[in-house]
Amino acid sequence: MMSVLIIGSGNVGMHLYSALLETKNIIVTQISSRNISKVPNADVTIIAVSDNAIAEVSAKITNSFVVHTSGACAINELQNNSSKGVFYMLQTFTKDKKVAFSEVPFCLEAETTENYKLLKKLANSLGENIYPINSKQRKALHLAAVFVNNFTNHMYKIGNDICENNQIPFNILHPLIKETSEKITTLTPRKAQTGPAIRKDSNTIKEHLSLLNNKEQEIYKLLTKSIQNGN
Amino acid sequence: MMSVLIIGSGNVGMHLYSALLETKNIIVTQISSRNISKVPNADVTIIAVSDNAIAEVSAKITNSFVVHTSGACAINELQNNSSKGVFYMLQTFTKDKKVAFSEVPFCLEAETTENYKLLKKLANSLGENIYPINSKQRKALHLAAVFVNNFTNHMYKIGNDICENNQIPFNILHPLIKETSEKITTLTPRKAQTGPAIRKDSNTIKEHLSLLNNKEQEIYKLLTKSIQNGN
Repeated sequence: MMSVLIIGSGNVGMHLYSALLETKNIIVTQISSRNISKVPNADVTIIAVSDNAIAEVSAKITNSFVVHTSGACAINELQNNSSKGVFYMLQTFTKDKKVAFSEVPFCLEAETTENYKLLKKLANSLGENIYPINSKQRKALHLAAVFVNNFTNHMYKIGNDICENNQIPFNILHPLIKETSEKITTLTPRKAQTGPAIRKDSNTIKEHLSLLNNKEQEIYKLLTKSIQNGN
Repeated sequence: MMSVLIIGSGNVGMHLYSALLETKNIIVTQISSRNISKVPNADVTIIAVSDNAIAEVSAKITNSFVVHTSGACAINELQNNSSKGVFYMLQTFTKDKKVAFSEVPFCLEAETTENYKLLKKLANSLGENIYPINSKQRKALHLAAVFVNNFTNHMYKIGNDICENNQIPFNILHPLIKETSEKITTLTPRKAQTGPAIRKDSNTIKEHLSLLNNKEQEIYKLLTKSIQNGN
């Protein structure tokens, strides 16, 4: 048996709580971060709050082992006086959309082997993809995630805008988006690159630019140059 | 019964030929574009060659109905004297990777209702997602595809580079990439946007920039600004 306390009721906290409720051998409790005057004890205390609240919230916790869930924060941003760790789930959590925890990569960090094992046991109750990731690696990973998730979504947003402006349903692009995302599980992104930029098809590039507004043009030009330079 | 001639042996031509071979009621022949002195007759002649060869190849064809497969070219770039059309399959075709034609969107254009019906019948032998798309819309669609496919793949490439530089396996990002691509089938890209840019989390943005080289910084800054401006 392991007891887990989740502090925070945002997307990560809520999804993690629901998932742990369904596991065996884990007793889970959740409290709001606004209500930490009386914190129950637990084997693992998970602070799932916004990055800039981690220091303040953790400073008030006296439980034995306190971890945060942030990709962007180092382990030593925790301000508790007891043991520290990180339980970072590399996935995008959306309200009202169920998370497939069995596929989530768990990126774990702890100060002692014993505590790492505790986090690993906890992660194993939810999924199988478990990685030891130190604070330096985690920051890099979080940055990589911004490119493949946030910036990619912005590419979808621009594609959607172009469709709307031309009375084309955006869902016509769904199969292409799916195939593009699947392709890099069998090919490196470098080998998967196609399109006018990599072909140096200057006629098509010129025509595309003529269809875009100034801000879209700036993005199109910069990414085309970057693809062509192999950067 | 319908007879189809495919001219061209690139990825599109090869995949289309293989798929049509497996259908009923379609008799398909394929020839190389280098060998068009003797072109057999067919109900539909599909020119699947690079964009800049469409005019030259089509000018030499005397068959009754000639179509190209290009997203970037207008219908009138065909130079045959007979009927013209477009059979554009909005998908990325990779050598040695089987295409799920049942999911491919077929974007069709023809000069007459009769010829449109012929193309629709042909598309129906392979799949179900069929759209009438005129030349102006198709150019916009092709441009949108550059964003959601080519530029997205470049985001994966940069994510991959960051992982490699920090001894992190890129496949740790696969579940996130998958979820990001699936999310926009149920949410608009605007609503699906997350991350430091949309949160205006300037501390994280600053730290991310410190981890990137100059060229990556330029991309990070421009896309962050674009997300924040809602462009």
